Amino acid sequence: MVGNSLGTLFKIISFGESHGEVIGVIIDGCPAGLKIDIDLIQKELNRRRPGQIALSTPRSEEDKVKILSGIFNNFTTGAPICLIIENKDVDSSKYEKIKNILRPSHADFSRLMRYGEFADYRGGGRFSGRITAGFVMAGAIAKQILSLNNIEIIAYTREIGGIIDDKDYDFKKKKNLRDKSEVGVLNSDNSQKISELILQMKEEKNSVGGIVKCIVDNFPAGVGDPIFNNLQSDISKAIFSIPAVKGIEFGAGFKAARMKGSEHNDPWIIKDGKIKTSKNDAGGIIGGISTGMPIEFNVCFKPTASISKSQKTIDIKLMEETELIIEGRHDPCIVPRAIPVIEAMTAVVLLDHLLMAQKIPLVLEEK
Amino acid sequence: MVGNSLGTLFKIISFGESHGEVIGVIIDGCPAGLKIDIDLIQKELNRRRPGQIALSTPRSEEDKVKILSGIFNNFTTGAPICLIIENKDVDSSKYEKIKNILRPSHADFSRLMRYGEFADYRGGGRFSGRITAGFVMAGAIAKQILSLNNIEIIAYTREIGGIIDDKDYDFKKKKNLRDKSEVGVLNSDNSQKISELILQMKEEKNSVGGIVKCIVDNFPAGVGDPIFNNLQSDISKAIFSIPAVKGIEFGAGFKAARMKGSEHNDPWIIKDGKIKTSKNDAGGIIGGISTGMPIEFNVCFKPTASISKSQKTIDIKLMEETELIIEGRHDPCIVPRAIPVIEAMTAVVLLDHLLMAQKIPLVLEEK
Amino acid sequence: MVGNSLGTLFKIISFGESHGEVIGVIIDGCPAGLKIDIDLIQKELNRRRPGQIALSTPRSEEDKVKILSGIFNNFTTGAPICLIIENKDVDSSKYEKIKNILRPSHADFSRLMRYGEFADYRGGGRFSGRITAGFVMAGAIAKQILSLNNIEIIAYTREIGGIIDDKDYDFKKKKNLRDKSEVGVLNSDNSQKISELILQMKEEKNSVGGIVKCIVDNFPAGVGDPIFNNLQSDISKAIFSIPAVKGIEFGAGFKAARMKGSEHNDPWIIKDGKIKTSKNDAGGIIGGISTGMPIEFNVCFKPTASISKSQKTIDIKLMEETELIIEGRHDPCIVPRAIPVIEAMTAVVLLDHLLMAQKIPLVLEEK
Amino acid sequence: MVGNSLGTLFKIISFGESHGEVIGVIIDGCPAGLKIDIDLIQKELNRRRPGQIALSTPRSEEDKVKILSGIFNNFTTGAPICLIIENKDVDSSKYEKIKNILRPSHADFSRLMRYGEFADYRGGGRFSGRITAGFVMAGAIAKQILSLNNIEIIAYTREIGGIIDDKDYDFKKKKNLRDKSEVGVLNSDNSQKISELILQMKEEKNSVGGIVKCIVDNFPAGVGDPIFNNLQSDISKAIFSIPAVKGIEFGAGFKAARMKGSEHNDPWIIKDGKIKTSKNDAGGIIGGISTGMPIEFNVCFKPTASISKSQKTIDIKLMEETELIIEGRHDPCIVPRAIPVIEAMTAVVLLDHLLMAQKIPLVLEEK
Repeated sequence: MVGNSLGTLFKIISFGESHGEVIGVIIDGCPAGLKIDIDLIQKELNRRRPGQIALSTPRSEEDKVKILSGIFNNFTTGAPICLIIENKDVDSSKYEKIKNILRPSHADFSRLMRYGEFADYRGGGRFSGRITAGFVMAGAIAKQILSLNNIEIIAYTREIGGIIDDKDYDFKKKKNLRDKSEVGVLNSDNSQKISELILQMKEEKNSVGGIVKCIVDNFPAGVGDPIFNNLQSDISKAIFSIPAVKGIEFGAGFKAARMKGSEHNDPWIIKDGKIKTSKNDAGGIIGGISTGMPIEFNVCFKPTASISKSQKTIDIKLMEETELIIEGRHDPCIVPRAIPVIEAMTAVVLLDHLLMAQKIPLVLEEK
Repeated sequence: MVGNSLGTLFKIISFGESHGEVIGVIIDGCPAGLKIDIDLIQKELNRRRPGQIALSTPRSEEDKVKILSGIFNNFTTGAPICLIIENKDVDSSKYEKIKNILRPSHADFSRLMRYGEFADYRGGGRFSGRITAGFVMAGAIAKQILSLNNIEIIAYTREIGGIIDDKDYDFKKKKNLRDKSEVGVLNSDNSQKISELILQMKEEKNSVGGIVKCIVDNFPAGVGDPIFNNLQSDISKAIFSIPAVKGIEFGAGFKAARMKGSEHNDPWIIKDGKIKTSKNDAGGIIGGISTGMPIEFNVCFKPTASISKSQKTIDIKLMEETELIIEGRHDPCIVPRAIPVIEAMTAVVLLDHLLMAQKIPLVLEEK
Repeated sequence: MVGNSLGTLFKIISFGESHGEVIGVIIDGCPAGLKIDIDLIQKELNRRRPGQIALSTPRSEEDKVKILSGIFNNFTTGAPICLIIENKDVDSSKYEKIKNILRPSHADFSRLMRYGEFADYRGGGRFSGRITAGFVMAGAIAKQILSLNNIEIIAYTREIGGIIDDKDYDFKKKKNLRDKSEVGVLNSDNSQKISELILQMKEEKNSVGGIVKCIVDNFPAGVGDPIFNNLQSDISKAIFSIPAVKGIEFGAGFKAARMKGSEHNDPWIIKDGKIKTSKNDAGGIIGGISTGMPIEFNVCFKPTASISKSQKTIDIKLMEETELIIEGRHDPCIVPRAIPVIEAMTAVVLLDHLLMAQKIPLVLEEK
Repeated sequence: MVGNSLGTLFKIISFGESHGEVIGVIIDGCPAGLKIDIDLIQKELNRRRPGQIALSTPRSEEDKVKILSGIFNNFTTGAPICLIIENKDVDSSKYEKIKNILRPSHADFSRLMRYGEFADYRGGGRFSGRITAGFVMAGAIAKQILSLNNIEIIAYTREIGGIIDDKDYDFKKKKNLRDKSEVGVLNSDNSQKISELILQMKEEKNSVGGIVKCIVDNFPAGVGDPIFNNLQSDISKAIFSIPAVKGIEFGAGFKAARMKGSEHNDPWIIKDGKIKTSKNDAGGIIGGISTGMPIEFNVCFKPTASISKSQKTIDIKLMEETELIIEGRHDPCIVPRAIPVIEAMTAVVLLDHLLMAQKIPLVLEEK
């Protein structure tokens, strides 16, 4: 309850269920005057669409975006924008059979304790990763506005199942490299290894977790509202709304626990007449406010909870132990499809803060 | 701006500056009928008070809590509770000298870009760790209400400067062990090693980071509001409001990235007629809602930014490079003093969610 | 912007435009376990539907409610409920012709100054009374929950164009009487007179305003959150969201300005063992909290701004004076159709407050 | 609960009780760089201070404003500003005697049903008009920022006890005229009559209500966020937070109910090259957004509930009827002292909306 809105001046409201009519999102507070490129929204949706590659769930959804409100003559009007996709390839039969069996590490028990027996459990209902399609649609619009202000976001796979891809490149090159990889890593050799690992997991009826890195380029200094609406707080709140996320770290992150101040502190320098730091262990945020350096953070995803391996669990109606084999259609690794979702939520939060900092006007100038 | 409130039904508002008149907090939404134990508030404050031990900053503050509103005949009334401590041992001279020098990894530049030259920079102003005294006062009240409901929170040092203290004990024993340690770890041998490391940092005019673990016992299942007000999101948002925090992970956390589903999934079992999991890699939260297992998370602190070692940086008025030696009074490691702050913010967030879940009444029964 | 959400625990989000695809509403925070009676929602919609009677606009819309999310097996799930109606009988041609002419007492100029030229002006866009269909759908659900708790709301016409209908009846009789009247008054002789007045206005190409009275029966004492979320504040905020409202007064209202304390004060009495007041000039709210007496307030509507009479105004492109004859399709008096809207908004606000007061559970018991 | 905050970007938090330590307010979101004129705050406080004139309560409070946070070197910093006044002339004995007697039209019963027996009842506690001193302090700061932008607010008495003062003057002259009158009316003959009426009420141990008019000059067009955060909604919400308010109307207000569209509609004209309306029955707000014409509204106050006349009521402990004579110290008419409170709340709401409309920067330019 009351949990489906995020943001202050650029607010998104999530609705819809995995096997309901639609997945949707409302954007309240989008500046007027943005020329909507619906292909861009669709392109972002396609990045997280299921059934795209051999590595992901066989559920096949067209995920075609439909605009219900807020756009007129192809421009945003300042009114709430409602975007939906329809659920078509719905097969709820497998969920019906196991509706009293608690799937390990799924929200079945939490949900029962919170909503009683009324919640829609089909396909995970509100707890399905599919609801992030709404995040992606909202993010696609936020990204268009950020882009007009030269702010670019990229997320990519840093690690899956222990295979670490940490060779770095400059910002512009990253996008090309990532887009060439089926699993969203920058280096092709690791891409191959990770693809093989994921296929192996599929065969083993198992799954695996991973880490996504996200970088925001050209974000202006001076944005963020300490104490509680600081940038780290608001980004982390948004990122933890993505199912399966279990950790987030900014800049040097958990490594900072083993660093000395003299190592972690980023020296201030003047470069091309601008104030910068010579390195960026702060991840672009100090005191909760942007420094003008790239915003950088890592997000940890647990392995997909749905596995086809036999698992011990309980039947909650009979109150007795049982074995469970989850049939359904699931990704052996959610990480590659989570990449556009992380970009989307980051865009949503940052645009909200840019509006609060009055760095973006309420009515965009016509170009 | 607009960043100083947190919460929906149990809301805290932070105010005050490090070298201003007071540090304060308002609690809006505290249930009526709580018998206030002011000694308990003071005890919590004392846990984070500076000048307590050789290891921390020499700034000496009495930090005596004063109640300005919301209490009548020793009970909470349901009206907003305003609590303050005064700033007495204030020495702003050292800040005056360096006010144009950007201290590395401090919020000086962020602050200038956000507030212009108007912000109070003395002692870090609003960006000082001292503002967390307000968090602790609010948390002390939240903890009293949680305690009446048998919910207990403990945080303790897990790691400082690479010295890991991971031998575990049952919940009740942990509190005793931690309280015996000057640095808040559970095992006395590590306590000794860490104390020595911190003293060494002090001598080296350097600092060091660390990790705090937090566990919540007896938290009921079914609390949390997906999607955006899920428990992980709201806890992380609150925790990142504590200065120097750079990462948070729930349950197995970042380790989950290298686990298989068959390893990470927590099997459901029936124990003493209750539904539990046989292990707790989920950290007590699935789908953003509590499972009834202990809530567990780790928080990473960067090393204190203020070090007395000479550092390269720039003078922002002259726009030229310079060297900086920070005099002031600083903790070589903030981790031990951050422990009660983490407990406090956790208590505040969880009480807010318990009220939203109607697990705690608006008027407490008289005992 | 950011203006399309209302409420804390029972939150509604409005979207859609008069001549867009749909008019819609999202309800976030509806308790789980309400058996949805879709006919009841449709019945409420029909009460404010255009084209029903000779007295209202000839625009003919079926206004058939469609559920996009939040309902499963006919019960609410606790997830956000998205309800829409489609716009079908859309004729935007008349708006195209006058899009640069400022219609007197319409939001044309306000809208331009707020959203630039991007807003959807067709049929009034977001400023159309048609958006209140979304309010009515949300209110229909809120009313069902209130009804389960024996709380009933009735609004009726008190006055139109100076014809005052102030003979009163007991609560139950009022509903019958009102429903017999085409214009929503209680007494049939006034009903006839008012109908004639409205038809006369139509012929004169003019319009007329009026007053609606709203009464809430059986609302429990002790609900409302002073200071700023008191019941009068939150009801008035919601009511002023209805287009054409220009005033609200509780209990004796503006008459209180001419009363003495000894007249206005409501004496407390004991009646059937319960604490009541012998009269109700307070309108059921004292100190912003409900007293247990009926909540009573009056709402003033201005005459419909759209009249077919020739009016002096300006062309904003040419920046010169002009004459305007509004064609379109409009109600000569909005008051009768506003009655269900006032009931709806009242229901929404009161349910939100009942949830905050923990008077209604988050999961409704199955009956 | 949760009711003590108002606003989004310029947020005020109210705290304190009539006979507690202090009455206070926190302002969160005040732009940085406002030179604070503490005399101006004090001057506003003095306007509503008790014990000033023969006509008001004999309680004598110095009401000296004290700044606890948010100001540095005499300028606002962007951090939360905490302002308090102390309660000194406290005499709670009279409240002790009658604490089980329900005072007619007081919040005694509402309060008991909401907070149980825990609320501070002394002097009305949180329900006292004295809490509006906090509103006035916040408003004084808001007014200073509005003034820098040439926006001026004036409220004055329109009517007390049936004596109507409706002869109008231009904006600048109004302030002088009002300030000459002990009761805040514009015309000296009515001032005399009203003063006599109030004294008569005092002698009769009775009280009387009235109406305050408020006008905002030079408020820019295009401010306000439909649907729910429209200007009428947000002003009315704030105004109903003032104790004893029972009605509000904008522009022609309730008179609009008896007007035809052709009378009520304000014709658009061009005057000195600017777009205006030739009259202002809309009260400066159409569609919830400012039109650039003066914002105008009337507020109705009920007669003071505390009267020294004997009243019938009940003893809630004995559950039996009784007679009550309220001793205490009370104003026979609250209207004159409410004037600065209405100005203050109006300033607070409008500044919040100006910030949302990006019409005022977050860091004010130094002049």
